[in-house]
Amino acid sequence: MSLDLTPTLSPARPLDSADAMEDRLREIGAARYHDRHPFHHLLHGGQLTRGQVQAWALNRYYYQCSIPVKDAVVISRFRDRATRVEWRHRLEDHDGAEGTEGGIDRWLVLTDALGLDRDYVEATDGILPATRFAVDAYVHFVRDQSPLEAIASCLTELFAPHIHAERISGMLAHYDFVNPTVMAYFQRRLSQAPRDADYALRYVREHARTPQERAAVCNALIFKTQVLWTQLDALHHAYVLGHVPPGAFVPEDMR
Amino acid sequence: MSLDLTPTLSPARPLDSADAMEDRLREIGAARYHDRHPFHHLLHGGQLTRGQVQAWALNRYYYQCSIPVKDAVVISRFRDRATRVEWRHRLEDHDGAEGTEGGIDRWLVLTDALGLDRDYVEATDGILPATRFAVDAYVHFVRDQSPLEAIASCLTELFAPHIHAERISGMLAHYDFVNPTVMAYFQRRLSQAPRDADYALRYVREHARTPQERAAVCNALIFKTQVLWTQLDALHHAYVLGHVPPGAFVPEDMR
Repeated sequence: MSLDLTPTLSPARPLDSADAMEDRLREIGAARYHDRHPFHHLLHGGQLTRGQVQAWALNRYYYQCSIPVKDAVVISRFRDRATRVEWRHRLEDHDGAEGTEGGIDRWLVLTDALGLDRDYVEATDGILPATRFAVDAYVHFVRDQSPLEAIASCLTELFAPHIHAERISGMLAHYDFVNPTVMAYFQRRLSQAPRDADYALRYVREHARTPQERAAVCNALIFKTQVLWTQLDALHHAYVLGHVPPGAFVPEDMR
Repeated sequence: MSLDLTPTLSPARPLDSADAMEDRLREIGAARYHDRHPFHHLLHGGQLTRGQVQAWALNRYYYQCSIPVKDAVVISRFRDRATRVEWRHRLEDHDGAEGTEGGIDRWLVLTDALGLDRDYVEATDGILPATRFAVDAYVHFVRDQSPLEAIASCLTELFAPHIHAERISGMLAHYDFVNPTVMAYFQRRLSQAPRDADYALRYVREHARTPQERAAVCNALIFKTQVLWTQLDALHHAYVLGHVPPGAFVPEDMR
């Protein structure tokens, strides 16, 4: 039995300053971000079949298409106009505009290249229930928790550029169905994610003013790493270990 | 690679009557209820370690303690007093009363017998994130979908007595830490679940009056089977296949 030992966070240092909180946030990322997940290593290491990559792209489409819904909820939490204005570009980043491609369009370029039918992808009927539950939990979190925690939950973007860069180089090197056009989503996020993460980090450093609020920020990041990790666990269980739940997508190479 | 082939539902018969809907509901149960899940077979077949049974009981505690929350939301959806009155006993079934044991108390008897600390169980900190996401999805479902679908989502109780009976006899036969007192939760549900399921089935037969409403009832049952199946998938992945996610409970026999 292989056992993923839980990484240990350093003995809790009091969250008595923005710097102490930022250190804790970076520890959480190092211990819990999904670049540590075995499925990520299989994916960028070229060890997945085309069908397994299809399953990943199909499921992650549900995450992609839920992000602007999540961002609209975040915007709705702020009576302060400046914060709404600052957050608004994220809607356009993902949804695009008349004649302008957005992140969801770029994700569909990837699912097209993988030979998945667009109607099937957009219907999201074949995704794993665990994907839907995890992604919906993220949308509910930003609605139900405090506005500070809603912003903090996007801090995983601090760690995203590294994983995007690994995906781009790894997938281009290993899969013949991947080319730079197909990887445009990740290429674009290399510049978008740091800008968004910088804003969110500045925001939580400024607005979390008590140890309790700083702990809530850290817990929001832990929650979000769980949203991402759970999606890869479900893909791994279904498509690497072969336990596809009733009704979910079955790739041709697993039929 | 072992592959759980998705059971095929019979070619869709039009849902033009309550009988046609009930047939479809029973097909869904036969194909998708979690008595078909490999983890269930390992559990009642005596093939799990004490630590794996602990993980199951710890995680399922989160489901148990969320059920009366879910039922309170269901009650809140009805302006019709008779339906609220009919549903109310479920709160007492699970929460008990001053001096009267409820389902949650009986579940804690089981976790006690397994050597789990009550404070740890009740805090729910060690559960799998997938458990929390799936169970919370159930609570959100009964809040966000129609009152008819909220009631329909409990129709898994139609299939529960069989699985409870299997658990009682299988676990009593195979595990030395299990005795009849410990299995009191399931023993009690043998009489409670059929009463509740009969009411829900009569309700949806009477109130789903169009093919669209009958389809919504069937989809609510599918949703609920996914809530249950996803919990066992996550347990199987973490505690049978050894991929415990960061921060979750690690039994002594897996350390």
